[in-house]
Amino acid sequence: MKEIKRLLNIIEDKNSKLHEKDFLLTWEQSRDELEQVLYLAEALKSLRASNIDTRVFNNGLGISLFRDNSTRTRFSYASALNLVGLTQQDLDEGKSQIAHGETVRETANMIAFCAEAIGIRDDMYLGAGNAYMREVGEALDDGFNEGVLPQRPAIINLQCDIDHPTQAMADLAWLKEHFGGLDNLKGKKIAMTWAYSPSYGKPLSVPQGIIGLMTRFGMDVTLAHPQGYDLIPDVVDVAKNNAQASGGSFRQVASMEEAFDGADIVYPKSWAPWQIMQQRTELLRQNDSQGLKALEQTCLAQNAQYKDWHCTEAMMKRTRDGNALYMHCLPADITGVSCERGEVEASVFERYRIATYKEASWKPWIIAAMILARKFAHPGDVLARRLEAAIPRVYR
Amino acid sequence: MKEIKRLLNIIEDKNSKLHEKDFLLTWEQSRDELEQVLYLAEALKSLRASNIDTRVFNNGLGISLFRDNSTRTRFSYASALNLVGLTQQDLDEGKSQIAHGETVRETANMIAFCAEAIGIRDDMYLGAGNAYMREVGEALDDGFNEGVLPQRPAIINLQCDIDHPTQAMADLAWLKEHFGGLDNLKGKKIAMTWAYSPSYGKPLSVPQGIIGLMTRFGMDVTLAHPQGYDLIPDVVDVAKNNAQASGGSFRQVASMEEAFDGADIVYPKSWAPWQIMQQRTELLRQNDSQGLKALEQTCLAQNAQYKDWHCTEAMMKRTRDGNALYMHCLPADITGVSCERGEVEASVFERYRIATYKEASWKPWIIAAMILARKFAHPGDVLARRLEAAIPRVYR
Amino acid sequence: MKEIKRLLNIIEDKNSKLHEKDFLLTWEQSRDELEQVLYLAEALKSLRASNIDTRVFNNGLGISLFRDNSTRTRFSYASALNLVGLTQQDLDEGKSQIAHGETVRETANMIAFCAEAIGIRDDMYLGAGNAYMREVGEALDDGFNEGVLPQRPAIINLQCDIDHPTQAMADLAWLKEHFGGLDNLKGKKIAMTWAYSPSYGKPLSVPQGIIGLMTRFGMDVTLAHPQGYDLIPDVVDVAKNNAQASGGSFRQVASMEEAFDGADIVYPKSWAPWQIMQQRTELLRQNDSQGLKALEQTCLAQNAQYKDWHCTEAMMKRTRDGNALYMHCLPADITGVSCERGEVEASVFERYRIATYKEASWKPWIIAAMILARKFAHPGDVLARRLEAAIPRVYR
Repeated sequence: MKEIKRLLNIIEDKNSKLHEKDFLLTWEQSRDELEQVLYLAEALKSLRASNIDTRVFNNGLGISLFRDNSTRTRFSYASALNLVGLTQQDLDEGKSQIAHGETVRETANMIAFCAEAIGIRDDMYLGAGNAYMREVGEALDDGFNEGVLPQRPAIINLQCDIDHPTQAMADLAWLKEHFGGLDNLKGKKIAMTWAYSPSYGKPLSVPQGIIGLMTRFGMDVTLAHPQGYDLIPDVVDVAKNNAQASGGSFRQVASMEEAFDGADIVYPKSWAPWQIMQQRTELLRQNDSQGLKALEQTCLAQNAQYKDWHCTEAMMKRTRDGNALYMHCLPADITGVSCERGEVEASVFERYRIATYKEASWKPWIIAAMILARKFAHPGDVLARRLEAAIPRVYR
Repeated sequence: MKEIKRLLNIIEDKNSKLHEKDFLLTWEQSRDELEQVLYLAEALKSLRASNIDTRVFNNGLGISLFRDNSTRTRFSYASALNLVGLTQQDLDEGKSQIAHGETVRETANMIAFCAEAIGIRDDMYLGAGNAYMREVGEALDDGFNEGVLPQRPAIINLQCDIDHPTQAMADLAWLKEHFGGLDNLKGKKIAMTWAYSPSYGKPLSVPQGIIGLMTRFGMDVTLAHPQGYDLIPDVVDVAKNNAQASGGSFRQVASMEEAFDGADIVYPKSWAPWQIMQQRTELLRQNDSQGLKALEQTCLAQNAQYKDWHCTEAMMKRTRDGNALYMHCLPADITGVSCERGEVEASVFERYRIATYKEASWKPWIIAAMILARKFAHPGDVLARRLEAAIPRVYR
Repeated sequence: MKEIKRLLNIIEDKNSKLHEKDFLLTWEQSRDELEQVLYLAEALKSLRASNIDTRVFNNGLGISLFRDNSTRTRFSYASALNLVGLTQQDLDEGKSQIAHGETVRETANMIAFCAEAIGIRDDMYLGAGNAYMREVGEALDDGFNEGVLPQRPAIINLQCDIDHPTQAMADLAWLKEHFGGLDNLKGKKIAMTWAYSPSYGKPLSVPQGIIGLMTRFGMDVTLAHPQGYDLIPDVVDVAKNNAQASGGSFRQVASMEEAFDGADIVYPKSWAPWQIMQQRTELLRQNDSQGLKALEQTCLAQNAQYKDWHCTEAMMKRTRDGNALYMHCLPADITGVSCERGEVEASVFERYRIATYKEASWKPWIIAAMILARKFAHPGDVLARRLEAAIPRVYR
């Protein structure tokens, strides 16, 4: 209990304006704000481990809008809502009247009369996902200010075209746990590298989220990919600036080997080139299925030139003491398991399998923390009162 | 708190038998019963605004059965269930075994062992939707009387072929709010008029609901539509009789202009003619997709003759002081926004946009009120005890 | 209240290890364990009837994975989760990333960070459904032991290829209620017989579940089917052994008449032959839709030879005093109602309709009981504390 109280005090000591803005990109938040979310996640996890009910809402909806398939984000969001006492309601655009002339502005209000949170995954269209979230946010501000909505729901970015903040923050929480604190991340070498996969069209938001966030904490971040597999240039600039400001470093290299050399952490993962994602966005908009098929073929052929971007045992040996922490947002393309040849060798993945599950396990807590940080000016105090009330989570 | 207590006393003073019957058509309920629902909705809204938990069920299911697409009704129903403490469970007929020989009678019982409410939207088949709800009701009565069900769930009509009572009641609650009380509605002129839309097959239940309900409160109700866009004749008769009994009036005219002249309230909205809906019902039953397409073409061509049924700025100038309240159940077909030419001019809609959102915002409260009125003989007393307990909705 | 306390004491007196294992097949559980579940179901039902809130979880998810259509099992599971305080979250494999390379091991962990129960229906593939549940169970054990999961969720078998334990246990609870206690079942003659239906591919799990469970309680169990409509031989052996151990009997006959003669209980129901189900499994695996159609035609033709396996009034006259209890898992194929010629004559079904609804009504309680038995070493004590707290289910 003392440890939880200590965490709640840290949360309250942070200088945070998160209750006044949506957490849509990690680089729009201050260091204190990022830490507030991290510590809130930790406090929530500890409260549950102590069998204390973490619900701060006795009623209220949490809406989800998934414009792309999802398992872990869907369940993490559902778990987070449940942890804070909100009831999930899915906005299935196929079952709704949105096709029938509703505007974003209107829909945002119509679903939100009793909503405290709206989680959105919209990662397919470059230039659109994050913009859509902001459009929803403005509509909610308008509805709240005009007296239509009795509360302003928190928007949770469950993955957009630019960032994947719940993933990157969960990854950071895991690194904090694994290395024993944020301070211990200073100077750690992390390799965010492209890896071969027999699929195409994987979003850029994970690598962008990683380089955009890890450069905030004084880490030495290396981004590696074959020529032509660029990320959005603006985000690369964000990473460069972050590194300079935090006292870390950011560099780009063109080989996996170079990135892995001496790394403390490796994050090998496939993605589609930025330029391809732009073409794909255009083709999706035009509903050009032939064009999409042709593009897929081109991409798969291009990918196939880089099969040696493979996280093998030999590759792992290059890392610090041959013992870097392997990370992945899951599901990974595992050679000989989920595909003939993929991102990672089976023996490497198997050795770090439980570690990747623990990495993923932070997501519900991070999402719940983001909701609390958006809804309450003093989320630490709110949880402190739950700690004091000490209603059991399970009546044993 | 005093104001909420006053509302709860009004509720208890009403002579209501709503706990003994389902609210399937507004004209089957007494004036006192309608008012009970209105005041319950207002009390629930006030309780939530005072951060008081309105859940009266600690567990129990609320079932939804949507036989047509829906955004706002779906979310309003989900919100209402959440407000009173029930958990939504969707009966998706596609995922069920209903095709596999289950009868309505059987299904109604099988889903209801722990259900306190069943919300049904069934508006596609003329002559069928409301009848289906009654069939479900009889099956539930049977199951409850025979000891199969430990409780008789409330049936909530979320739109049928005849009436849309949650919409009409929400509209009435909005008028009551806007004009400062039910008494102020006496003598107000409301124009329920057809309007052009480039779509077809829109249900009759909204205009029917409006003329069936607003004639109860001494309003001067005008129904306007082009020749051939009739509503169900029985419902028109209901409106006539209501007007006579309430001291209001009901008339039918054949031009939008005439209806708008001097109106306090205008409700311009497209619908399909009754006779067409009958043909459509027959074709849907026969699964005659070619016939449906042909009917659609005929209808769209017919509609196109009446493009001047358009709620323009010029049309609005005809209303009282050029300033009538514009209403719509949403989504509206807005000229130049959701279609090239629709029901309403963009500038008119924009001026009343927030007003229509507020109109819609009454729906969750009305639905929750209907559930409470059906489940408790003394819903005002039930809420009075929640007010006294004063459990916070949000633990701030 | 005294009666509920008596039930809770009985529950605690049972020697049960159910909190250490998943309830996947009734014949893997001891007699005491089966009785613990029955009495827990009864206690939960009584608590709710006394308006006492039965929720023992203040937050937590209950996950459902339906690989086949379902109405009553889906709603029963949802009801059970709601009764114990868990929030349902559906794992829709179509909307997830499972196709995208996730392993069972990984998915099981990814969905379970906050899950207390996982209900699975997987009855289409012979040799696969039950095995899949065990694979999920092992993954959850692994995740829990490795510190990935803060709790080990209960797996609930909502129907597999071998057994349908929630159905069989609900049927047993109904027999216990109907005949006034388990002791009264000793020596009762039950006829589990095949019946004609114009459909094919119905799972074997219901008849297998019935012969596997009812032979535990000293009943005289007769299994009847036309030649070639065999159940899985191993399960038939289980029934034989059970009967010997419990002091009952088990026999197989080749005519409905013989099975019905002098029976106290009849359970006429269609199923597909074991050998056909094996072929069908193979064809489903190969995605051979032509092969499946051909197999269906063969089976329907084979079925049609046995239209006289029909639960008629004449057939019922053969039973004890012409008055045996008719049972069915529902939906039944009722002659002249759901099909031209089916399993049961309409007048017979109608006479027992309410009885079959009461039979079905036990399922939510059985499922809730299974969850409690798996999650708590002393579920009776857990409920005793809820009884003492006596929080109302409904605030009247």
